Amino acid sequence: MRLEVSCLIRMACSQPTAHLLVLRPRSDVHQWIVRESYVLSPQVPATEYMDGFGNLCQRLVAPSGAFSIETRAEVIVATGVDTGYGEPYVPVESLPDAVLVYLLPSRFCESDRLGAVAMEASANQRLGYDQVAAISRWVHARLRYLPESDPMPVAATEVLARGEGVCRDFAHLGIALCRSLSIPARMVVGYLQDLEPMDLHAWFEAFVGGRWYAFDPTRPQDNKARVILARGRDAADVPVFNQFGPPVTPSEMRITVQVLAD
Amino acid sequence: MRLEVSCLIRMACSQPTAHLLVLRPRSDVHQWIVRESYVLSPQVPATEYMDGFGNLCQRLVAPSGAFSIETRAEVIVATGVDTGYGEPYVPVESLPDAVLVYLLPSRFCESDRLGAVAMEASANQRLGYDQVAAISRWVHARLRYLPESDPMPVAATEVLARGEGVCRDFAHLGIALCRSLSIPARMVVGYLQDLEPMDLHAWFEAFVGGRWYAFDPTRPQDNKARVILARGRDAADVPVFNQFGPPVTPSEMRITVQVLAD
Amino acid sequence: MRLEVSCLIRMACSQPTAHLLVLRPRSDVHQWIVRESYVLSPQVPATEYMDGFGNLCQRLVAPSGAFSIETRAEVIVATGVDTGYGEPYVPVESLPDAVLVYLLPSRFCESDRLGAVAMEASANQRLGYDQVAAISRWVHARLRYLPESDPMPVAATEVLARGEGVCRDFAHLGIALCRSLSIPARMVVGYLQDLEPMDLHAWFEAFVGGRWYAFDPTRPQDNKARVILARGRDAADVPVFNQFGPPVTPSEMRITVQVLAD
Amino acid sequence: MRLEVSCLIRMACSQPTAHLLVLRPRSDVHQWIVRESYVLSPQVPATEYMDGFGNLCQRLVAPSGAFSIETRAEVIVATGVDTGYGEPYVPVESLPDAVLVYLLPSRFCESDRLGAVAMEASANQRLGYDQVAAISRWVHARLRYLPESDPMPVAATEVLARGEGVCRDFAHLGIALCRSLSIPARMVVGYLQDLEPMDLHAWFEAFVGGRWYAFDPTRPQDNKARVILARGRDAADVPVFNQFGPPVTPSEMRITVQVLAD
Repeated sequence: MRLEVSCLIRMACSQPTAHLLVLRPRSDVHQWIVRESYVLSPQVPATEYMDGFGNLCQRLVAPSGAFSIETRAEVIVATGVDTGYGEPYVPVESLPDAVLVYLLPSRFCESDRLGAVAMEASANQRLGYDQVAAISRWVHARLRYLPESDPMPVAATEVLARGEGVCRDFAHLGIALCRSLSIPARMVVGYLQDLEPMDLHAWFEAFVGGRWYAFDPTRPQDNKARVILARGRDAADVPVFNQFGPPVTPSEMRITVQVLAD
Repeated sequence: MRLEVSCLIRMACSQPTAHLLVLRPRSDVHQWIVRESYVLSPQVPATEYMDGFGNLCQRLVAPSGAFSIETRAEVIVATGVDTGYGEPYVPVESLPDAVLVYLLPSRFCESDRLGAVAMEASANQRLGYDQVAAISRWVHARLRYLPESDPMPVAATEVLARGEGVCRDFAHLGIALCRSLSIPARMVVGYLQDLEPMDLHAWFEAFVGGRWYAFDPTRPQDNKARVILARGRDAADVPVFNQFGPPVTPSEMRITVQVLAD
Repeated sequence: MRLEVSCLIRMACSQPTAHLLVLRPRSDVHQWIVRESYVLSPQVPATEYMDGFGNLCQRLVAPSGAFSIETRAEVIVATGVDTGYGEPYVPVESLPDAVLVYLLPSRFCESDRLGAVAMEASANQRLGYDQVAAISRWVHARLRYLPESDPMPVAATEVLARGEGVCRDFAHLGIALCRSLSIPARMVVGYLQDLEPMDLHAWFEAFVGGRWYAFDPTRPQDNKARVILARGRDAADVPVFNQFGPPVTPSEMRITVQVLAD
Repeated sequence: MRLEVSCLIRMACSQPTAHLLVLRPRSDVHQWIVRESYVLSPQVPATEYMDGFGNLCQRLVAPSGAFSIETRAEVIVATGVDTGYGEPYVPVESLPDAVLVYLLPSRFCESDRLGAVAMEASANQRLGYDQVAAISRWVHARLRYLPESDPMPVAATEVLARGEGVCRDFAHLGIALCRSLSIPARMVVGYLQDLEPMDLHAWFEAFVGGRWYAFDPTRPQDNKARVILARGRDAADVPVFNQFGPPVTPSEMRITVQVLAD
């Protein structure tokens, strides 16, 4: 299907502020970018590079005063996500080299602390996809969803202690639990059709049966279309909107997702 | 300044034909992509990856029958190219690791065959930028320019023997001569403002004084704006339009470059 | 100078256990590996790849029963470490792309939590090298050193709360404080001449004045030679000795560092 | 089995001469390096990096006067090479992204010139492994083997015209013919057990049936053990021994391969 997604960020900085952003989606096997735009107002010098996870990262210095970033993309994606019940666990020694990094603990996914919880969440499941699906359901059942976005991420153990969180927190807990079982898992940030209230969204992917599958512990029943902005080990690796220096809260952040054609 | 560039390719394949394309420009330190589109008609599955030179490469199978690819981009670039007369030669042992690959001979730049010519073309010049500038002028003076494009590239020694060629051939000879002097050089393919007749264009970059500088042996006096599509060691590394299987000649290939604002 | 370093690990696994190791040092600008060996006993199939930080990573499955890994290297390194008092802070917008990842918070370096402490630790210093040197001294003064090694790393905020730690913890706190000031910093694991008691050692590097400088908050006065095994964002990125499945504590881990010639 | 391989190069430079070398074998899925050494005499500063093909490349400046490089490695490898008769051709659109670069023409493998020859050499074969095996036999039958090494490589079309060549030339022709059939192929340089006269050796790998298989058109019947030093698109990508500036011919180059255990 064909979606149009957009992200508008307005801010007012009291001094020039360096930004690192990941707001330009890339074409890959999941999605084809038919057209996209990235408009800075006022226009300031900006550059772009690809990080170690394959994300296009934009660098710029927001000037003093009013500044806005508006990105927009028309994207062809599959409807919904693939499922793979029964797909087997891949033993660590058989994982591709490039996948191993997603087994290690990371800033917000302290998988080295959650082994017992992961066993409980995935009890009585076939090893592999079914374990991850059970973890995703368990996270969904265990956490209360906070619709308002929270600027300060916390790590998975703290998410669990709080018993509530935003989509990013749900994803972090899911990822950490998978890694505790030696299942590679990574963060995905992007757009989700019909999200309510509309915002950027976060979910996760796990590597079972020889490929990556998507899981969304915030909305496990949902089979809506998704546009991916960035992937990484967790939110710390995916600086969708990152500032250096005195923090500036955007005065406006408006996300849209619109279906253009099925 | 702000340019709009476009490329339209129409073809008719007698059988499904795999393509590898490099037609989506990337933002980097040279240029900022404000908006771009990549439209396939009919829409077929397509994917994209980044190659070892940092180019975004598109993969698709053109269907039997009429097929078109139309790309378009609005780009902010500097006017003209930097010059660096007097910038010194960088000894091989001081070159960055990532630059060394551009010293080695490649498919169309057999620098291992052109040492004597390179000495002649750069005689009496200060080592470094001035040598490359002399090579660029020498190539321009030595070769007759063929405006029609030629689908079959030939190597630099053959270009020299023929005494004529298209922009790509001029670039290959320039690159091969630089490498003969142990100056790293690489191919650039993109758009050039006011090219006559309008087409995709090829020029080259050489590494002197600690950075890459652009040189255009086809149009050495020109100080027009350029949009970069791809870089590589030579045309073989830069498959802007590459087919596998029985070759299909595009029935139409139309390039435009338009100044939107200075 | 010329050092010989070695690492012997003995273990007994109750079941075959997948390992990920980073025990083979690489030649680079810091060190030249004259000879090295990596002996498994019994010999089992093993493979190696390079991770995203440039480390050579070894993969193998330790068999049930007694197993040992013995690595040894003869290495030429500079004596001591370079210092750069007065080297300036590099503003975020001027950092090389590849360095930015070392600004982001990571598993054990939650730089997003330590801004105020970093200001205190580096108060009244010139921006850049001198700030990092002050942080290194501050960490040294603030933490009590625990010579025994601790298998379970904790994050920098917890290190600070405990007021004590092993060399890895000292490094984590130093790194986190640097990143809080927008100074890129990364973990280094390796061998240190004359360490007492001898063990693998951890320190850190910070990027100021356009290059990386080494700092050792555990032993700030020391100007001994160092052999580097691995670099990364923190200990989670540097799986010098990493197991998957039920943990197996080595029954013996013996490290040696010997000066062969000055 | 367990082999010891060594390479000794002696030279006398009239002036300091920059070298780029690929003489340190790496552990990977094919081979495990148990121990290796890389001795420069006199010892000069040297550094190492990994190129885009995964080879460890050494950089150094050979001083004026006598200089030697001696490398040695003890390596565990499989005996012989895998064969895969019947393994199918992988259509271009199904190839992994990273493999595509080995379809493009390169300095010494001008696959864009050899389509008709490739059809002849592989006539009546099942698509895939069997085509490559036929090409390897065809090259072997068609070319006369020159045991003495030739410092100046020539391209595949020239090899074919000459009707003779060294192992590198056999490999180049095999690679070019494979790529003409849209089968990815790459150069391998290394050591071959029982080669007569002993020297470094070159062969090639082709990607069929979802993996790389080795082929040796110089010695097609041989099922001896091999140690890999480097891989690339052709000899231009694999600068096993590369000088910049006035060429210096080694006064001695001695290669050994010895079986330590079966």
